[in-house]
Amino acid sequence: MERTDLGRIMAFSDGVMAVAITLLALNIDVPDLPSSREGELADELVDLIPSLGAYALAFALVGRYWVIHHGLFERLRAFDGTLMVLNLAFLACIVLMPFGTQLVDRYGDEPVASAVFGALLGLAGLANWAMVRHVVHRKLAHEERRDLTETVSLVLTVIFFLSAAAAFLSTPLAYAMWLATIGLRYPLRRLAG
Amino acid sequence: MERTDLGRIMAFSDGVMAVAITLLALNIDVPDLPSSREGELADELVDLIPSLGAYALAFALVGRYWVIHHGLFERLRAFDGTLMVLNLAFLACIVLMPFGTQLVDRYGDEPVASAVFGALLGLAGLANWAMVRHVVHRKLAHEERRDLTETVSLVLTVIFFLSAAAAFLSTPLAYAMWLATIGLRYPLRRLAG
Amino acid sequence: MERTDLGRIMAFSDGVMAVAITLLALNIDVPDLPSSREGELADELVDLIPSLGAYALAFALVGRYWVIHHGLFERLRAFDGTLMVLNLAFLACIVLMPFGTQLVDRYGDEPVASAVFGALLGLAGLANWAMVRHVVHRKLAHEERRDLTETVSLVLTVIFFLSAAAAFLSTPLAYAMWLATIGLRYPLRRLAG
Amino acid sequence: MERTDLGRIMAFSDGVMAVAITLLALNIDVPDLPSSREGELADELVDLIPSLGAYALAFALVGRYWVIHHGLFERLRAFDGTLMVLNLAFLACIVLMPFGTQLVDRYGDEPVASAVFGALLGLAGLANWAMVRHVVHRKLAHEERRDLTETVSLVLTVIFFLSAAAAFLSTPLAYAMWLATIGLRYPLRRLAG
Repeated sequence: MERTDLGRIMAFSDGVMAVAITLLALNIDVPDLPSSREGELADELVDLIPSLGAYALAFALVGRYWVIHHGLFERLRAFDGTLMVLNLAFLACIVLMPFGTQLVDRYGDEPVASAVFGALLGLAGLANWAMVRHVVHRKLAHEERRDLTETVSLVLTVIFFLSAAAAFLSTPLAYAMWLATIGLRYPLRRLAG
Repeated sequence: MERTDLGRIMAFSDGVMAVAITLLALNIDVPDLPSSREGELADELVDLIPSLGAYALAFALVGRYWVIHHGLFERLRAFDGTLMVLNLAFLACIVLMPFGTQLVDRYGDEPVASAVFGALLGLAGLANWAMVRHVVHRKLAHEERRDLTETVSLVLTVIFFLSAAAAFLSTPLAYAMWLATIGLRYPLRRLAG
Repeated sequence: MERTDLGRIMAFSDGVMAVAITLLALNIDVPDLPSSREGELADELVDLIPSLGAYALAFALVGRYWVIHHGLFERLRAFDGTLMVLNLAFLACIVLMPFGTQLVDRYGDEPVASAVFGALLGLAGLANWAMVRHVVHRKLAHEERRDLTETVSLVLTVIFFLSAAAAFLSTPLAYAMWLATIGLRYPLRRLAG
Repeated sequence: MERTDLGRIMAFSDGVMAVAITLLALNIDVPDLPSSREGELADELVDLIPSLGAYALAFALVGRYWVIHHGLFERLRAFDGTLMVLNLAFLACIVLMPFGTQLVDRYGDEPVASAVFGALLGLAGLANWAMVRHVVHRKLAHEERRDLTETVSLVLTVIFFLSAAAAFLSTPLAYAMWLATIGLRYPLRRLAG
């Protein structure tokens, strides 16, 4: 059965993504120095820069997924139970991003940490791609516009899964791939939009 | 007195459920290995798989309660103070789900942990069933449609309370019952929808 | 200057209250037993019952403040900068409720803990009463209806501040006063509504 | 490409700011006293007053950024991809405010802590100013009204960056500057509004 009360799905999804993106900052801990060493605070803060970088990257990636989600739901005219389940699966991946960010920040040199981060991004991409395909097949969008969204979603998903594999060759390569998608995807959306 | 400004009840409920469902992931802790043992990270991550399973199950169960809540409120034409109080009681149970998930994940073999998890699900179901009954009795829904929602809510509640009792016979049986409701309920909703 | 875009103030307020009410559950910690003593889990869970009671009480009190906030904003036709500032002050008190709840739960017998909890409730009430008065004076409500809301807000505030003082005579008396407001206020709202 | 579905950007931004403002209270920890010293709770709570002050100041500053954000988006008639990216950058700064607040609370005498707090406020101001400029240049607002918003945003940003530098002369001076902006900005907005 199709339903058209889209407001609450979007409100709930926005809420989940808003909480998850805020929790990304939890991997940046305030240094805990004894009072005799408080003068070393500046050095300790400099040591936090990689954590800040991991936070900024994860924020950009989750923020971009929000932009993608927004772009998809903006065009819907209706939804069904399957879309709701796929949306929950997508959100379940997003909610794991703070865990993935902490993992990659804590174990930057361990390929398996980067592989998990890449796989989480890939799973979110897969759920997103499944949503796009479902919307196209069930004609749930307002317009029949032939666009690049489906292709772009698939390419993004493939890049993320490849980055998980690439992490075992070189963790900086995996990082480079994540960064590249940020530069890549925003202009692509403009084409697709 | 009946009121019809339903938007904020739904927004608040969505907010509470969005935060609670995000906090479910907090039981998945990043392993804390000394630098000499970082090579064992892969093994540590494998050990997290049961936690990930508990998270996925709890996410599906809370997500399903969100779907049920959405389905109920979508049909309302008005609400009253009693519905607001019942809704708060429902949300108070949902907010305890991250606690229940951590409990069942940390003490998987202890019947009492599974019993608490099942009882929390049952109490949420009871509050939901009370809302459905109240809506029917006070004719707060748009339509008088004779449907399965009330029965389905009651069946779900009974299964959850039975699972709390079943945990003392066998914890895997309780898990199986929770999983079964996921498979069961989604198609039922389609019938009822 | 008066403005009429009320949606976002309510959305932001709902968001803050939704997060704060969810964080109330954080005072209920999963017991941490060594594996040799896991059989004592049931006893440990029984020891959590007072924490659960504190959570339920705080949830009812914050939930009621949400109901009051909802009731006030539902009648607004416009707002101004002062109302925004008062609303932020109200929210700043609500956000401290998880702290107050943990305090009262951890130090149940210490009068000062109950006094802080009562004072937080009183400050939230004071901010709420200031909002109601401001709305009446600036004629920001849809109707000029003469009602009990202002009186009820003031009575509630006074009871909460008195409970903070009463805590130094007897902590159970303070608890009794908080409980009493829950029974009291809901019917009063019906009169006032 | 311009789009006009502003609701979700605001909902997501409200969600992120609501979570971030609630997490500000996390720097206020419930004292952990052994039962033999519970009578000292009052003293321990008095020691929390500076933390409470830091929380109140940060709440006012983040709350004010919400008011500014609300004021900007209220006047929009459309948005584009650049505004979305700038908005995400703004939110990424806001999300770091609980970290900054804990830092300044824990290390009140260290200039570098206050400098980081001031710099975070400045970066949020910069992102906000960039949004205002972009809206003006791309004519995304409903009206062409010549107002003080752009100037005010810039002044605020400059004050915050100056406060980061001033912290190295005197941390109380930096605090005074933050406090001054609260007194300053609200009336300015009334002029600008």
